[in-house]
Amino acid sequence: MIKDLAIEEVKKAKEVLSHIARKTNLIHSASLSKDNNIYLKSENLQLTGSFKLRGAYYKISKLTAEQKKKGVIACSAGNHAQGVALAARENNIKATIFIPATAPISKVEATKSYGADVKLIDGVYDDAYREAVKFQEETGGIFVHPFNDIDVIAGQGTIALEIMEQLDKADAIVVPIGGGGLISGIAATIKHINPDCKVYGVQAQKASSMYRSIEENKRIELSSVNTFADGTAVKLPGELTFEYCQKYVDSIVTVSEDEIAAALLTLMEKEKIVSEGSGALPVAAVMFNKIPLKGKNIVCVVSGGNIDVNILSRVINRALLKTGRISNLTIELLDKPGQLRDVSTIIANLGANVIRVRHNQGGEGTDINDCYLKLTMETRDFEHFYAIKNALVEHGYNILSTVQ
Amino acid sequence: MIKDLAIEEVKKAKEVLSHIARKTNLIHSASLSKDNNIYLKSENLQLTGSFKLRGAYYKISKLTAEQKKKGVIACSAGNHAQGVALAARENNIKATIFIPATAPISKVEATKSYGADVKLIDGVYDDAYREAVKFQEETGGIFVHPFNDIDVIAGQGTIALEIMEQLDKADAIVVPIGGGGLISGIAATIKHINPDCKVYGVQAQKASSMYRSIEENKRIELSSVNTFADGTAVKLPGELTFEYCQKYVDSIVTVSEDEIAAALLTLMEKEKIVSEGSGALPVAAVMFNKIPLKGKNIVCVVSGGNIDVNILSRVINRALLKTGRISNLTIELLDKPGQLRDVSTIIANLGANVIRVRHNQGGEGTDINDCYLKLTMETRDFEHFYAIKNALVEHGYNILSTVQ
Repeated sequence: MIKDLAIEEVKKAKEVLSHIARKTNLIHSASLSKDNNIYLKSENLQLTGSFKLRGAYYKISKLTAEQKKKGVIACSAGNHAQGVALAARENNIKATIFIPATAPISKVEATKSYGADVKLIDGVYDDAYREAVKFQEETGGIFVHPFNDIDVIAGQGTIALEIMEQLDKADAIVVPIGGGGLISGIAATIKHINPDCKVYGVQAQKASSMYRSIEENKRIELSSVNTFADGTAVKLPGELTFEYCQKYVDSIVTVSEDEIAAALLTLMEKEKIVSEGSGALPVAAVMFNKIPLKGKNIVCVVSGGNIDVNILSRVINRALLKTGRISNLTIELLDKPGQLRDVSTIIANLGANVIRVRHNQGGEGTDINDCYLKLTMETRDFEHFYAIKNALVEHGYNILSTVQ
Repeated sequence: MIKDLAIEEVKKAKEVLSHIARKTNLIHSASLSKDNNIYLKSENLQLTGSFKLRGAYYKISKLTAEQKKKGVIACSAGNHAQGVALAARENNIKATIFIPATAPISKVEATKSYGADVKLIDGVYDDAYREAVKFQEETGGIFVHPFNDIDVIAGQGTIALEIMEQLDKADAIVVPIGGGGLISGIAATIKHINPDCKVYGVQAQKASSMYRSIEENKRIELSSVNTFADGTAVKLPGELTFEYCQKYVDSIVTVSEDEIAAALLTLMEKEKIVSEGSGALPVAAVMFNKIPLKGKNIVCVVSGGNIDVNILSRVINRALLKTGRISNLTIELLDKPGQLRDVSTIIANLGANVIRVRHNQGGEGTDINDCYLKLTMETRDFEHFYAIKNALVEHGYNILSTVQ
């Protein structure tokens, strides 16, 4: 059997971390509180932009002087890289971080900014991992695993202790799952102290290795993971974290990419905080009624905020489209004067804002004398969009396509 | 002479507000701390998404029972509307808010969500204001001014008291200016307690009414204000706030739209918080060296986070373009096979990511047999972009235009 997490170890981690990590705010969200009272544990506002600092720092703090001299090694394209880099710097030891060359440049720069020696490796994660292992064998440095390590798990468990201080009675904590380190620490800690508090895990449907592993009662390795919640795109759960999830987690639910995007948008728009895809998983689960509770105090752990702004921009656009706030419409026009003016007038009268226009003659699928007009509009919601579409049809226009 | 702000009044406001407003975090920003130590007073994370709740709530709390019975009235397209609406609800009184129909739908919805009676008025702010005054005369309700009111100013001054609790020694506070209520409250309070602490105001170049008024030593009314920092787009400073600025503010600086956009992007990317344009003014001033200090503790007041996501998406794209992280390139191609492949290969080898392609034959300005290729790419920075451009030129391609 696995070694259980001692609550004393988590308390020790909390003491060690008090000198470096932020005690992140527990924010009550009025906008998300409908069926339940929703609180956000804002680890996206943690130093390095994610909770990963906690586990990495505690792990490194426990190394012997001899081990510290050899330095630490990690392999990561994201939050773990930054957590290890800052933790190593604060402990005055050397960190060598292997990052696949395909990683977003912003994450590479951030890791370098904490003073780590970054090795960019051609290929994907597995290639970088292979190089890291080779380097470890050569140097004898300490490999800091991103999740399958009891000290790392103890560090993440400090979040549960903070939540208990910040909220008198949490009925449930909802946590993203990638490798499972975060939820293992939180669930093991909370169940020791308050076994009545439920712990729910959330995974992206397209990267649901832990969900499937629990379902099939053995660790399942996925052949591919493909989600914009890249921080939780893990093919195979850890041995330790799998057993912790079996033992301590009440249930795991999954959410779609569009649900994650909608949650991310809500966090930005209503709570004014930036979350990465993985950080928005618990809010997506709450928003789309995956958590079977009513009238309870639920804490969503917003685990991180390190999202590439290029991706953020695409996610916003996608979410606006999926909520009817940006709408596309292709209209067939007779190729005669005044048609563009008439269509514009109908749309303006209904209060939509046209943001892109494409006007083409003799496109495929239209007669040689016809042309089509492709419009992108800012609309209030789907109802508003349908009102515009119906008004155009009533005026005799042929709608070739709509995209939502 | 004007009535001075009594520090006891601000302390009373702090006590009154302690039951409703959040004591927002003072966040140390490692990424912005270069020449100075930069702290962010995160009023974007305040209830209603901006500091406006403070002044509105304190004003309303001081009304007599008789006055409360008649309800409150406000005219605003933004943060003040939400502040008054929530403050009225918490005091169990009626709020009627006049909003120009051109306001973003998200702000209208937010104001309604706090239970206010919203009157949407056709036209611009001035039209809505006229209707609000008429309504006030008819009903005898209390008009809550957004800035030119000593109780409102006292409420905003509570931010200065909190900063002094949160940071032992602030050398300077940098504050956005629209009508001037926020900076009047902060400056008057801080100068009473710690006259050595500097107070700097920041305005958008395109809405710099207070800046010009101070310069010319009389209130100047601008004929138009045109900035995406819409929360500070005020044509004429208040009488009270103008005199407070004269008396207590050390200096006012201005920033460009692109500087505001870059600051907003930095807040999202590095600090994981969403700011509206106005809220990013102080950070823009710090980033672009408008504040003449070195080695000091500087607090930037991030005054609000209520930005329409459609606008946010545009601002991100603009900032990416202005920092070389998105680049456009138009290349002349001979109309023969393989050219698109060759160009794509050159770009891919240099590690840029093509996100949009337009390929046109016989465009204006090219020969009839030629065509042009318009590319939008994700690049690391300007250096990266120039490397790509130079590689294309070396391979014999003619660059028709670049857009930054």
